[in-house]
Amino acid sequence: MVPYFKQSKEELLASKKELLERYQMFVDQKLSLDMSRGKPSPEQQDLSNDMLKISEYITDDGVDCRNYGLMDGLPQVKQMFADIMGVPAADTIVGGNSSLNMMYDAVARAMLFGVAPGSTPWIQCEGRKFLCPVPGYDRHFGITEEFGFEMINIPMDENGPDMDLVERLVSSDPDIKGIWCVPKFSNPTGIVYSDEVVRRFARLQPAAEDFRIFWDNAYCVHDFDVDHPEKLRNIFQECIAAGNPDMVYMFASTSKISFSGGGLAAMCASENNIAFAKKHISVQTIGPDKLNQLRHLKFFGDQAGVLAHMKKHAELVVPKFQAVLNIFRRELEGLDVATWTEPKGGYFISVDAMPGCASRIYELCKQAGVKLTNVGATFPYGKDPLDSNLRIAPTYPPIEELELASELFCVCVKLAAVEHLLSARHAA
Amino acid sequence: MVPYFKQSKEELLASKKELLERYQMFVDQKLSLDMSRGKPSPEQQDLSNDMLKISEYITDDGVDCRNYGLMDGLPQVKQMFADIMGVPAADTIVGGNSSLNMMYDAVARAMLFGVAPGSTPWIQCEGRKFLCPVPGYDRHFGITEEFGFEMINIPMDENGPDMDLVERLVSSDPDIKGIWCVPKFSNPTGIVYSDEVVRRFARLQPAAEDFRIFWDNAYCVHDFDVDHPEKLRNIFQECIAAGNPDMVYMFASTSKISFSGGGLAAMCASENNIAFAKKHISVQTIGPDKLNQLRHLKFFGDQAGVLAHMKKHAELVVPKFQAVLNIFRRELEGLDVATWTEPKGGYFISVDAMPGCASRIYELCKQAGVKLTNVGATFPYGKDPLDSNLRIAPTYPPIEELELASELFCVCVKLAAVEHLLSARHAA
Repeated sequence: MVPYFKQSKEELLASKKELLERYQMFVDQKLSLDMSRGKPSPEQQDLSNDMLKISEYITDDGVDCRNYGLMDGLPQVKQMFADIMGVPAADTIVGGNSSLNMMYDAVARAMLFGVAPGSTPWIQCEGRKFLCPVPGYDRHFGITEEFGFEMINIPMDENGPDMDLVERLVSSDPDIKGIWCVPKFSNPTGIVYSDEVVRRFARLQPAAEDFRIFWDNAYCVHDFDVDHPEKLRNIFQECIAAGNPDMVYMFASTSKISFSGGGLAAMCASENNIAFAKKHISVQTIGPDKLNQLRHLKFFGDQAGVLAHMKKHAELVVPKFQAVLNIFRRELEGLDVATWTEPKGGYFISVDAMPGCASRIYELCKQAGVKLTNVGATFPYGKDPLDSNLRIAPTYPPIEELELASELFCVCVKLAAVEHLLSARHAA
Repeated sequence: MVPYFKQSKEELLASKKELLERYQMFVDQKLSLDMSRGKPSPEQQDLSNDMLKISEYITDDGVDCRNYGLMDGLPQVKQMFADIMGVPAADTIVGGNSSLNMMYDAVARAMLFGVAPGSTPWIQCEGRKFLCPVPGYDRHFGITEEFGFEMINIPMDENGPDMDLVERLVSSDPDIKGIWCVPKFSNPTGIVYSDEVVRRFARLQPAAEDFRIFWDNAYCVHDFDVDHPEKLRNIFQECIAAGNPDMVYMFASTSKISFSGGGLAAMCASENNIAFAKKHISVQTIGPDKLNQLRHLKFFGDQAGVLAHMKKHAELVVPKFQAVLNIFRRELEGLDVATWTEPKGGYFISVDAMPGCASRIYELCKQAGVKLTNVGATFPYGKDPLDSNLRIAPTYPPIEELELASELFCVCVKLAAVEHLLSARHAA
């Protein structure tokens, strides 16, 4: 393949004609496909259907889950999450069905009450800022936008966030209160933070003593090869070793293990952090849904049960990622119009199209009936400075639809590039 | 019976001796009973066990409840709550399992963002105040204490809060941002707000335009005689009629209908209020547990199904209230040592002991192995200015234990009164 940018105007015009013809064929099919959100497929949800048949309500040690109590969760479920996260069960709180809710509440608590007894509420810090590795998760950015943080983009590479930049900013600016991290199979690039990156996080010397790392380990057990998982260093232990035990809040959920619409979420943090959170949560609620916790406990048993279950997810998810990547390679390789990630787990493929082309690709796909994640969604304020990044979510659609959508996507990536190059030459 | 206060010193000493002997008999039984919280009994929870056998996950109109989406709840469940609350389904949000959590979040939202687009966050009102009808619900007061409100006691009578006082305060002080109400079978007095009280609430002319009534209708369908329910006027409609549609937030839950540890909660309010809440909730969570919503929908069907279910609760609860009240009448009537409420629904009996005696009664009961709700819990800051009110929660214990505990309670009420009178005479 000759990269487009090396092609002559005539070659580009010929490519454009051919691409428009292919594009029209897609339009004629009147597609209606959605690749916008990282949702498990119905087949993935089916894997947990037997959980819905569990009608028990008393734990093995005699707790009646139907009644009030146990504000921080059933001890056995705390243990299950603690094992998955690599922390002590005592440092774990099991919440409702949404880890996003727990993160929002953690930020809201810090806004109103600070992060420790006697610390200053974040709302009193007028120039409060938050670091946002990009591309990242739109709903994280939504929270810090809601609470009035200035969000600062931090570039990511295959090892994680640019730690030189993170260290420089965090150590010098006391208005920087936190950073969003998806350390394993990062949303959307799918990369896993390297040991070095995790260690540098744990050793940060923040100017703000109330600086917190929001470690959203949403895809902690979501390896494609569950028997040979990608290793993520344990930030909790590293923070203790570095003398920064209180610096990290960890989050996880079963939204993509059991049910997105009825799973469990958990938060883990130091003894100090958990005591502070519990003090406020005990005013907020009498406790989460323990019947659903018991269902999960009876269905999974323990961490090993969760991992065995994740193998079944992988069997369904891997072929979809492979299908998309095969089409990307076939259609795009050698043309220098896009780069993409090939993750070993998680829910997304991140595509960097030719700068200035992402919005056009989104529009072209939309007009042909394929909905992508909004352009810019992976950046704070919904603004991708390069108009380049697109997030592909392969898990939900059936594989035939996925292949169709992926092929259309590639046609649009190429068409947008050709248009862009022709327009640039015309202007030149 | 001769009231204690009319008895001679010798008569009182004789009563004391007799009471101490009875008290010692209870102590010798080494009881361990808990009458402290308004918890449904295991038998009540059993009524909903069949709900746990529901393993469906698709609604009749094809929504897969296992996946993400529907942040404000399943439409059919919104309708069910709306019917119970007497509001349009569009003005309803179904949340997780805790209405307390929805109330806390409503206050937290107002603290951080105000109550409407452009309104001032409550946190900026330094002298913020909240009205607290007393005796009331400790967890309500916990929320407004957490958020730094000065809490003002509002006396209650059999018709509801003292509306002369409420009107005078609310219309004159813009720092008063809200009031806690449990309008039906009020916690703990069990009274139902009269039509007149509800109308006067709806017609308030608050000095603060961001004043909100927190209408916690926790016991809206918890009548002892479900076929002849106590009527509570519809505050939502009254507020519309009075030109104050945005002044009320309504809350309810199935915590005492289905399961306390796995029910559903809902909030109802005007279109403006709901739109404002949804704007923020959509940042906070992708949505509540829809599988549990579907379970409730399939089990109850609709409002009529809920009411039929409440009859079964009443059959279990009424004998317990009667048992307590029979003992109160037998032991206390005519002695002028206590008054108590005889509610027609809900979860509590409120006892006003001789002023200055509640703490002593609590201690005496505790030393004999019966745990009551903390003295003062029914007042802001946990401080009952008269040291008189005690909340009795009859629903949880088996009836034999309840009778034992009630008898002990009465002995302690009398013993504390005798001690108090003797001590007063000694001082005089």
